[in-house]
Amino acid sequence: MENGRINIGMVGFGTVGTGVARILLEHRELLRARLGAELVLKFVADIDTETDRGIRLDPGVLVSDARAVVDDPEIDIVLELIGGHGIAKELIERSLQNGKHVVTANKALLASQGNELFRLATEKSVELAYEAAVGGCMPIIKTLRESLVGNVVHTMTGILNGTCNYILSQITDEGVTYAAALAEAQKKGYAEADPTLDVEGMDTAHKLAILTALAYGMVINLEDIYLEGISKITPMDIQFADQFGYRIKLLAIGKDRGEAVEARVHPTMIPFDNLLSNVNGSVNAITLTGDAVGDILLKGRGAGMMPTASAVVSDAVDIARSLLTGGGVRIPPLSYLPERIRQRPVLPMDRLETHYYFRFAAVDKPGVLSAIAGILGKRNISLKSVHQKGRKTNGSVPVVMLTHLAREADVRAALREIQALDVVSDETMLIRIEDENDTD
Amino acid sequence: MENGRINIGMVGFGTVGTGVARILLEHRELLRARLGAELVLKFVADIDTETDRGIRLDPGVLVSDARAVVDDPEIDIVLELIGGHGIAKELIERSLQNGKHVVTANKALLASQGNELFRLATEKSVELAYEAAVGGCMPIIKTLRESLVGNVVHTMTGILNGTCNYILSQITDEGVTYAAALAEAQKKGYAEADPTLDVEGMDTAHKLAILTALAYGMVINLEDIYLEGISKITPMDIQFADQFGYRIKLLAIGKDRGEAVEARVHPTMIPFDNLLSNVNGSVNAITLTGDAVGDILLKGRGAGMMPTASAVVSDAVDIARSLLTGGGVRIPPLSYLPERIRQRPVLPMDRLETHYYFRFAAVDKPGVLSAIAGILGKRNISLKSVHQKGRKTNGSVPVVMLTHLAREADVRAALREIQALDVVSDETMLIRIEDENDTD
Repeated sequence: MENGRINIGMVGFGTVGTGVARILLEHRELLRARLGAELVLKFVADIDTETDRGIRLDPGVLVSDARAVVDDPEIDIVLELIGGHGIAKELIERSLQNGKHVVTANKALLASQGNELFRLATEKSVELAYEAAVGGCMPIIKTLRESLVGNVVHTMTGILNGTCNYILSQITDEGVTYAAALAEAQKKGYAEADPTLDVEGMDTAHKLAILTALAYGMVINLEDIYLEGISKITPMDIQFADQFGYRIKLLAIGKDRGEAVEARVHPTMIPFDNLLSNVNGSVNAITLTGDAVGDILLKGRGAGMMPTASAVVSDAVDIARSLLTGGGVRIPPLSYLPERIRQRPVLPMDRLETHYYFRFAAVDKPGVLSAIAGILGKRNISLKSVHQKGRKTNGSVPVVMLTHLAREADVRAALREIQALDVVSDETMLIRIEDENDTD
Repeated sequence: MENGRINIGMVGFGTVGTGVARILLEHRELLRARLGAELVLKFVADIDTETDRGIRLDPGVLVSDARAVVDDPEIDIVLELIGGHGIAKELIERSLQNGKHVVTANKALLASQGNELFRLATEKSVELAYEAAVGGCMPIIKTLRESLVGNVVHTMTGILNGTCNYILSQITDEGVTYAAALAEAQKKGYAEADPTLDVEGMDTAHKLAILTALAYGMVINLEDIYLEGISKITPMDIQFADQFGYRIKLLAIGKDRGEAVEARVHPTMIPFDNLLSNVNGSVNAITLTGDAVGDILLKGRGAGMMPTASAVVSDAVDIARSLLTGGGVRIPPLSYLPERIRQRPVLPMDRLETHYYFRFAAVDKPGVLSAIAGILGKRNISLKSVHQKGRKTNGSVPVVMLTHLAREADVRAALREIQALDVVSDETMLIRIEDENDTD
């Protein structure tokens, strides 16, 4: 750090990197007025040094050798905006080894290898900041690490993937199929050409892995998060949900159950009066429930150039403020002191208790309903309501049932048995319900 | 600061103070696991040392002499939870003079005398933290000061007073009068015996004064905030609003208009698809619009013992973290360096341009509508729609008009002229509309 100048080395000059450069250059004066020092973009490294990103960097700033940037002794803070596991991981490790603070938006890397990266950062007494990794510009990491520091956080319920939320909103509002909604999302740039990571829920799981570690004082554990994507959701299920006062969202759910932690990602029905049900399009939102604060909701754009860049810049400024005032690392990366972080078991899905929506494709014959209900009853799954509407498709009618609290193991066993019935065709649809108003 | 112990002196042991004591005592272990040190409640001062608050303080902790607490050289952080202007101000000043960091929830004091108090804190190189002063447990101060540091914040639109929001929600949901809703709010403890500060909008203005200073780099200026309370709102207006797709909320509105800043508090119609319209009961929420992030919404309990206490504790921990890592004051109190804070003019209401809802009490005779419309037209107020429904009360019928963008000075002049017409009885109701979808 020179006099009133903090030197930034940015590796990765893609979408987010371009946004960060834009903020640092266009808001240079604003940042000086707030920080009292300049964040100088000393080097930007990218394998592509040719493409015009519409940003005027000083001569010599854009380079191709990222390793040289993170080795430069004059760089105070490295911004890792490449993403993924390969070179990104190497550069973060190398930066930390070199005693440099790092800001990253790389949720996939943190979810799978955050434990060792945070350990290294702590060892080297530097920051590894990651506000941009979860929820884009919603200040979810700061809220958990700082604002809720005096709270036991019981529950987190979030819409953390804009692609999925856009697709589900399209199916809901336009009545189109999943395939049509996905195609539209790809056309608009909300979904990748290969959308698997998003629509199958893995991106959401990455974020939930980070949030559960942070909130529940546990080692990051991606492997044990239950995962179910949105590709099987049909307009018919969305219409049924609507009749029952629910909307379907892909939720990341984390609950501290004491002996274990719930950590699951799946399409979920939530009631209209839950504000998350009104969060539409590519937006993210999360509800955090703490013992002192009750519910807090944060909502904002979860991805995109400028929102993510804003989060990266806020992390860089946070670090700069500590550098400028002579302080060390103020906050442990995962909120708890490293020695207080525990290996905590994730509740196996079989032991989950929740409410369920089932849609069976049943032959329209007498006795079918009672056969299904009989199997459910045998497994202690008690029904709240049964709906049979005569919309016959492929020779079968949809029979919809909503349950009282039931155990997932029982549900799965019952559905296997029901599926084996002659009178049930196609796969049965199962959607879990989160409804706080519904206490049984 | 002793080894791993931060000594807290709390002045004021009322509702919020009791909540803070509860968090510090009940979450001692949690806070140690996150902070690596203990926040020790060394002294609690209150004139009432008798009442049992259900908190078991160590002997000698509860004292009656607040001045002795803030003079105690062993106290690191003072929590001012008395409120108001008298002794609270003296104690904050004395603490700052003594080189102690201060945490306060005192919005009324900061709104009127924050400029000098922040100046003193800066002079003495100590923190004067105030997360709990605005929006209870919503991390609005931290979000503006830290998360949005790389943004120009254009617009803030907030529901910042739970009492008013509860009353308006009651009128909306139950169709009761303002008086009945207020009585209900008082019965439930959501409104004070003297509710003036809340229902006339002054409490909201206090908070807006702080937020506009923070967001727009300006000197705190309470005097120039336009203020209108909710006591005149009738169920009839709420029903009309509903027909047009609007709900009525008491909003704090801050907009950076470049040459001036809009800062106003008044009942406002907002469309159903604005998430704020679905924030009901005693809850607070705010939408911040930044140039990089777009819209961010925060929602949470804006008052009450534990939510406010949580915000106080988060400020204390923030300060403790800097103390423990040897750093100085990291962030200027109002986000901008003191020398960068400007005297910025607040836009006079007369120059406001917005959309309006008028409800006239008109005699049911031919020619009345055209007389009213004629006067409006003469003042360049163009109408979007006119509604006359035959619900005669006291011999007059309500005539409702919605306008295109109009200038407040013109509106006031026109209403004065209309009010003077023989055919118009009672006061005309004027409610401003904030509708982003409506660009003209």
